[in-house]
Amino acid sequence: MSLPKVTVWNEFRHEKQDAEVRAVYPDGIHEAIATGLRGHGLTVRTATLDEPEHGLTEAVLAETDVLIWWGHMAHDDVKDDVVDRVQQRVLDGMGLIVLHSGHFSKIFKRLMGTTCNLKWREAGEKERLWVIEPGHPIAQGLGEFIEIPHVEMYGERFDIPAPDTLVFVSWFAGGEVFRSGCCFHRGSGKIFYFRPGHETFPIYYQPEVQLVMKNAVMWAAPAGGPEVTFGQRKIPLEKI
Amino acid sequence: MSLPKVTVWNEFRHEKQDAEVRAVYPDGIHEAIATGLRGHGLTVRTATLDEPEHGLTEAVLAETDVLIWWGHMAHDDVKDDVVDRVQQRVLDGMGLIVLHSGHFSKIFKRLMGTTCNLKWREAGEKERLWVIEPGHPIAQGLGEFIEIPHVEMYGERFDIPAPDTLVFVSWFAGGEVFRSGCCFHRGSGKIFYFRPGHETFPIYYQPEVQLVMKNAVMWAAPAGGPEVTFGQRKIPLEKI
Amino acid sequence: MSLPKVTVWNEFRHEKQDAEVRAVYPDGIHEAIATGLRGHGLTVRTATLDEPEHGLTEAVLAETDVLIWWGHMAHDDVKDDVVDRVQQRVLDGMGLIVLHSGHFSKIFKRLMGTTCNLKWREAGEKERLWVIEPGHPIAQGLGEFIEIPHVEMYGERFDIPAPDTLVFVSWFAGGEVFRSGCCFHRGSGKIFYFRPGHETFPIYYQPEVQLVMKNAVMWAAPAGGPEVTFGQRKIPLEKI
Amino acid sequence: MSLPKVTVWNEFRHEKQDAEVRAVYPDGIHEAIATGLRGHGLTVRTATLDEPEHGLTEAVLAETDVLIWWGHMAHDDVKDDVVDRVQQRVLDGMGLIVLHSGHFSKIFKRLMGTTCNLKWREAGEKERLWVIEPGHPIAQGLGEFIEIPHVEMYGERFDIPAPDTLVFVSWFAGGEVFRSGCCFHRGSGKIFYFRPGHETFPIYYQPEVQLVMKNAVMWAAPAGGPEVTFGQRKIPLEKI
Repeated sequence: MSLPKVTVWNEFRHEKQDAEVRAVYPDGIHEAIATGLRGHGLTVRTATLDEPEHGLTEAVLAETDVLIWWGHMAHDDVKDDVVDRVQQRVLDGMGLIVLHSGHFSKIFKRLMGTTCNLKWREAGEKERLWVIEPGHPIAQGLGEFIEIPHVEMYGERFDIPAPDTLVFVSWFAGGEVFRSGCCFHRGSGKIFYFRPGHETFPIYYQPEVQLVMKNAVMWAAPAGGPEVTFGQRKIPLEKI
Repeated sequence: MSLPKVTVWNEFRHEKQDAEVRAVYPDGIHEAIATGLRGHGLTVRTATLDEPEHGLTEAVLAETDVLIWWGHMAHDDVKDDVVDRVQQRVLDGMGLIVLHSGHFSKIFKRLMGTTCNLKWREAGEKERLWVIEPGHPIAQGLGEFIEIPHVEMYGERFDIPAPDTLVFVSWFAGGEVFRSGCCFHRGSGKIFYFRPGHETFPIYYQPEVQLVMKNAVMWAAPAGGPEVTFGQRKIPLEKI
Repeated sequence: MSLPKVTVWNEFRHEKQDAEVRAVYPDGIHEAIATGLRGHGLTVRTATLDEPEHGLTEAVLAETDVLIWWGHMAHDDVKDDVVDRVQQRVLDGMGLIVLHSGHFSKIFKRLMGTTCNLKWREAGEKERLWVIEPGHPIAQGLGEFIEIPHVEMYGERFDIPAPDTLVFVSWFAGGEVFRSGCCFHRGSGKIFYFRPGHETFPIYYQPEVQLVMKNAVMWAAPAGGPEVTFGQRKIPLEKI
Repeated sequence: MSLPKVTVWNEFRHEKQDAEVRAVYPDGIHEAIATGLRGHGLTVRTATLDEPEHGLTEAVLAETDVLIWWGHMAHDDVKDDVVDRVQQRVLDGMGLIVLHSGHFSKIFKRLMGTTCNLKWREAGEKERLWVIEPGHPIAQGLGEFIEIPHVEMYGERFDIPAPDTLVFVSWFAGGEVFRSGCCFHRGSGKIFYFRPGHETFPIYYQPEVQLVMKNAVMWAAPAGGPEVTFGQRKIPLEKI
């Protein structure tokens, strides 16, 4: 089996506007993520908001097995026709990994059908992600939990449909919990929401976080299942 | 516990335009459904597409515990702001029962995040809905299956998220199967997709079909759970 | 609808052997639970390990809509034929609510098919149960979380099948999380595992905990669905 | 990634006692299945009931990534300590694929916690397995359905827990439906129940059926996730 082709999409605005962010992610969050995945042997390209068509042309998407999505301050700047296109590709089989503040992206809200809202706090507290489903491929190579020393907290109620599989649940020092690794089938595609990340905490450099993203890419890659057809079936398969 | 207040929404176009439909549902599909539910002791109002705001004003929705939706030929005529309003009410706790061709309604597609497409055939063939989850309240009072003598076939692949609970699976004479009773939690609301129905087959007069709709109303009624809050939590619950 | 008839089963050994436990639950844990449920209007009987047939005769089970189970130090003293009988009743439609250390009861392990093992610590730390599925009837009347000031910790990985619905996730001061309110369909019956409780912490006197148990009784009551039949079907429903 | 090591277990009694069965599976059902999997490049050994310890010694299980199980007439002859051993291996991460009449095996009933009962008919009728979840890896390389010309019918209600993922639903000419491809996580292991098969119908020679078994092996292979630990955690991870 050939390895899935990955596109990492990043809003790439914080890094341009804010020296503090640039200090952490000098080449952009997308490059940090891409570098981590390349270290796992994957072929990765990147795309960003301010490129034509946000870098997500039909041609790019056609070449993408798994799309990783990071956005935060400019969700509304993503054009609806690009969202339509990405949604269709997911339903046709492309994997989608939505990271951290991407919970509020148009594409995630569209695919979930809910507000995807949550509670949050920026206090740099500790997070511990517990593996809830140890037999799931996204848990490959992990210990029983992942600790991240300084994070922005996200707390329940996370307004999403119950995931098909719940892989991680997070504990936060400030008293909240969160479903932080959630698998969804939508159409012929697979979606993984993964909570960790932030524009000023160096979370995407952490090896376990990179490993989860690699595992998620492998899991979310197109399954190569049936070409699904819809519509009228004038002639029944059996004599009525 | 007081009984849930029901609003039956119907597009109500076929009945006005087509004598064959009117012969089956002279007062509209909504009245047939409402009459069946009233026979089970429920208080039911109706609303239709051509009323102002499609009959689904803020006031009506505020008074509605469970909304039943039938549409077919005029899905696109439903205004987006009414769809927004209904979606928000569902996420806030209102139950929603989507019937038959309502699979292609704006509100159902919005809440599912997928195309909700399927295979179909109008040949008047037999359908048998098997109860898959006999402990579910929607199966109350039923036998092991429901037979409907003449139906429009809907066949898999049905492009929806896997339901939280699968209550019915249909067998069709022509060779297809279909997940015909599907429960979903979305936000604080509950959604039941129920396949049976048609504008020219008299399915909504069938007692088992009416019983399922009554059971679904009881199941989908608002749970009275916590008022969910979102957003910043500046002060942590625990000392960090 | 008449209210479900409840039987609260308690091992009732700690209370007899240990003055500290007796000080908290002078009439036994079963009486504390039963009193809480009676306060919600339910009719409740009790049964304990050292009664003949552990108090769970065919006659008692036939009269029981929902069975609540508390055990801890004497799981092995429960006779296998009584476990068989309870399992069969659950599969036939009786509700079962398994509390706290009941995770290691024969009946729960039997119905789950897994070890039901977990991590634990007796340090009297704080637990906060977050409502994850606010539209579920077991969340009725609750706030966004329940706090219990002093508990025995249970931590993930909890070795159970993924629940059909996850209602609560717990946060613990010591750093763990736990799926503390878990719904399962098994046969025609419904099972709710609810984590709170202990023999020396007065948790079953806490109103929110009592409310959850009442809600769970209502949810787990027999659905009145089809009488399920199995075995050979010599004559097909359709001409082959 | 190295390919998973497979053990195909067969009761191997019908073939010895019945010339009609031997005519279809002269070397036993296990060899037919093994040959099919070897044709997909997998390394496969076999084990049968009448070997010492049913061929499932600690050593064999330790060398097995995925165990395939076929049994029918002699479920009761499988010793409980071997069932214990297989169950433990599954919970520790080994994949298990249960075929056809294996629904009534001790190991499957043990892992499900239910009766696993169903309706059945031996009339050689047609079955059509519809792919319900086209994005699942077990659907790789398939069309929208698989047709098997002559089968023993299995009909709902199938008394199992709702599967974590439902991949196939079967249509039968005689009027029934069945959840015929069901995925379960149990412990760190994965289980796939696959309905097709029979001792006198040559179903295990059918290429699509072999392909599904290969896909299921790949899916069910151990994930390499965390080594799960249980028991007392005297020292909390955080200061209480």
